[in-house]
Amino acid sequence: MAHVVIVGGGFAGLNAAKGLGDVPDVRVTLVDRNNHHLFQPLLYQVAMAGLSPADIAAPIRSMLSRYSNIHVLQGEVRTLDLPGRKIATDFGDIEFDYLILACGARHSYFGHEEWEEFAPGLKSLEQATEVRRRVLFAYEEAERSRSTDERKRYLTFVVVGGGPTGVELAGAIGEMSRFTLAKDFRNIDPTQARVILLEAGSRILPMFSEQLGKRAVRDLETLGVQVWVNSAVTKIDADGVDVKTERIRTATVLWAAGVEASKLGRATGLSVDRVGRVMVEPDLSVPGFSNVFVAGDQSCYTHQTGKPLPGTAPAAMQQGRYLAKLIRTEVTAGTGKREPFRFTDKGQMATIGRSRAIVEFGKIKMAGFSAWVLWLFVHVYYLTSFRSRLLVVMQWAWSYLWFRRGARLIIPKAWRFYEHPPQETPITTQDAAASDRTSSLDRVR
Amino acid sequence: MAHVVIVGGGFAGLNAAKGLGDVPDVRVTLVDRNNHHLFQPLLYQVAMAGLSPADIAAPIRSMLSRYSNIHVLQGEVRTLDLPGRKIATDFGDIEFDYLILACGARHSYFGHEEWEEFAPGLKSLEQATEVRRRVLFAYEEAERSRSTDERKRYLTFVVVGGGPTGVELAGAIGEMSRFTLAKDFRNIDPTQARVILLEAGSRILPMFSEQLGKRAVRDLETLGVQVWVNSAVTKIDADGVDVKTERIRTATVLWAAGVEASKLGRATGLSVDRVGRVMVEPDLSVPGFSNVFVAGDQSCYTHQTGKPLPGTAPAAMQQGRYLAKLIRTEVTAGTGKREPFRFTDKGQMATIGRSRAIVEFGKIKMAGFSAWVLWLFVHVYYLTSFRSRLLVVMQWAWSYLWFRRGARLIIPKAWRFYEHPPQETPITTQDAAASDRTSSLDRVR
Repeated sequence: MAHVVIVGGGFAGLNAAKGLGDVPDVRVTLVDRNNHHLFQPLLYQVAMAGLSPADIAAPIRSMLSRYSNIHVLQGEVRTLDLPGRKIATDFGDIEFDYLILACGARHSYFGHEEWEEFAPGLKSLEQATEVRRRVLFAYEEAERSRSTDERKRYLTFVVVGGGPTGVELAGAIGEMSRFTLAKDFRNIDPTQARVILLEAGSRILPMFSEQLGKRAVRDLETLGVQVWVNSAVTKIDADGVDVKTERIRTATVLWAAGVEASKLGRATGLSVDRVGRVMVEPDLSVPGFSNVFVAGDQSCYTHQTGKPLPGTAPAAMQQGRYLAKLIRTEVTAGTGKREPFRFTDKGQMATIGRSRAIVEFGKIKMAGFSAWVLWLFVHVYYLTSFRSRLLVVMQWAWSYLWFRRGARLIIPKAWRFYEHPPQETPITTQDAAASDRTSSLDRVR
Repeated sequence: MAHVVIVGGGFAGLNAAKGLGDVPDVRVTLVDRNNHHLFQPLLYQVAMAGLSPADIAAPIRSMLSRYSNIHVLQGEVRTLDLPGRKIATDFGDIEFDYLILACGARHSYFGHEEWEEFAPGLKSLEQATEVRRRVLFAYEEAERSRSTDERKRYLTFVVVGGGPTGVELAGAIGEMSRFTLAKDFRNIDPTQARVILLEAGSRILPMFSEQLGKRAVRDLETLGVQVWVNSAVTKIDADGVDVKTERIRTATVLWAAGVEASKLGRATGLSVDRVGRVMVEPDLSVPGFSNVFVAGDQSCYTHQTGKPLPGTAPAAMQQGRYLAKLIRTEVTAGTGKREPFRFTDKGQMATIGRSRAIVEFGKIKMAGFSAWVLWLFVHVYYLTSFRSRLLVVMQWAWSYLWFRRGARLIIPKAWRFYEHPPQETPITTQDAAASDRTSSLDRVR
């Protein structure tokens, strides 16, 4: 009986587990510090009050409950002992025959950790809820403020990072101001809100063709978003943002500029790249340990094109499925030569507001409403494992028809019970999910 | 132009505001510390992972946006100056011609505030999320624990208070263990979970007839809930609950035993009853100030039956509508003799698990599935102002068909950004909503 331990229940870990479900002579233990799998590509919709957390997340446990050989445990991984074939968690040691690390990535502030307080990122449900709270609360503050300067500050929103997440956030804020909130206030005019998208590089969405990038800028501008390129952020504080010598006074800054891989790789002494991703062999194993694999955003796989694969859901899913097949073959047919992993590029898409998107797949380029319909179709299709697919479509249909945001709640963060206080552990499993757009990294640095 | 200030956007405040919408020569300012109105009768569904917060809450601002004479502000009320006709808030003073206080109620631990840490109540969305987190996390802890004693402790759930909220919570936990979670775990059998409902009085649901109360006990028992009457709690700590000399070891205690009115009444020097409700005149005004009213759970109205009205949504809604009519009449037709408020009793209902309820209206008594259908109908009907009515029905239908809980997410509470830290203010507006079952107060004391 081979014991496969998977750390992280994102797209890579979940697909690896599913591929090993009910395989004879294999048992699987999946450890994640959250109880839920998160459909991260739609996280910005939760942040922008279009969807509720439950619409894009589901308990890992119930997603895998049909497989009797899979055991799901909620917990944190503290250390890895690769030669000893075991991992240490906060609830005891677990021995493994195969280990798959799929701990994902988190935000990187490029050495300016002090910015995080003023510019939250968007990688988890609680961050999404926090971003929502800040954006909605800014309008409330503006409404009740009696100073024109303060109102202006509260009605200025800055999004840092011109990758897909930044574009989606900026577009959604622009749209919310122009349509959803337009009639709800008495002292302010939400349509006068100023939304600025800052990109350090020379253009936004660099992974798309220049033509589609320009189209995205135009679409953003019709939603009232100002796109500033060549605008590296030099300072963020409670009062605003510095772009070189210019000061933007704002109460709301959102960070979508860069990510770094989970610390688990580096802490174990594995060879990592500049953003902490573990360098893997063509079969996704780590040098020296053919039974230890790293998949998803945490891994740096360069054997196909010479460049790292994009940190997206399709790449993570393909890697997870590849590893399941590899282990299945070895357990049932014995060890042989391993086929290297091959990534199939399915193209890329980004949405801008309520009814526009850009899609690029090889030489095919689409923009506008038809691209948005395709974007919607693909995202709803990939929500397959969720009970909420139909509900999500209905909610979107509703928002679309009525220009409303359903989940527009400000829920206070303050809660004084800490039965299980947040633990400061150096090594933790991450929400190993996808859509980390590392490609704008260079430009921001 | 008469300026009506309403404090609290619960059932009373919201209905008062709606009744004054677009009335000539009246302008309304509604202040609430939350941005949302909460449909509190369904809050236990959020706590039990059946619904998402957005399903039972909606922004007050958007619910009232069609009335151009109504101004909604999010903020906290600090002090009241009744003779000076103004209130002080955290964003400045507001003068009024009429004032309606509808600040609702919160939990009361009868002098044992130290119990709150171990036994959260259920009055707000963040409390509901916290209760959900605790209940779901207990199963996770049990699953990963290696000690039989600890597993047993994690699989024991105690609900304190045998009113409708306590019955609903206990029934929902019982049902969740028996059906929803039954197949999701490997090390534990959730159907073996022990759910204990503690009631200090001699029977649960004392506001219902004895016959229906007995039926509720039977229905709870089929869901695996043990009902202990004459069982006053004497101690609650991290390890469990003391009932007289008996110790129940448990990691999860939920408080549904009693409420007290918002502190705003008492702090202003108004005459209040034992649980802090303001004693009001037959027209809901306070003695000495005919332009100041208290409505909903915050008021104690005894002129009709000699006893206080129940702290329910219908009572609050009727009072809100009554006050709107009274003010409308005075502003348009001039001051005359005021008709006293009359409460129309619509009966009462409580639900037990997924398909049973009890309903009592005068001499009409119903129980079982037919009562549950009626309960469902009434609650969906009253969700009128929400965009989510259809979604709620669909979600319930889904849960009903598949025995699943859609919103089964554990979202960590830990979040280190406190741009707007929780403020310790003695006087605050409450989530003025209904279904505070004060009637079990005596029995718990």
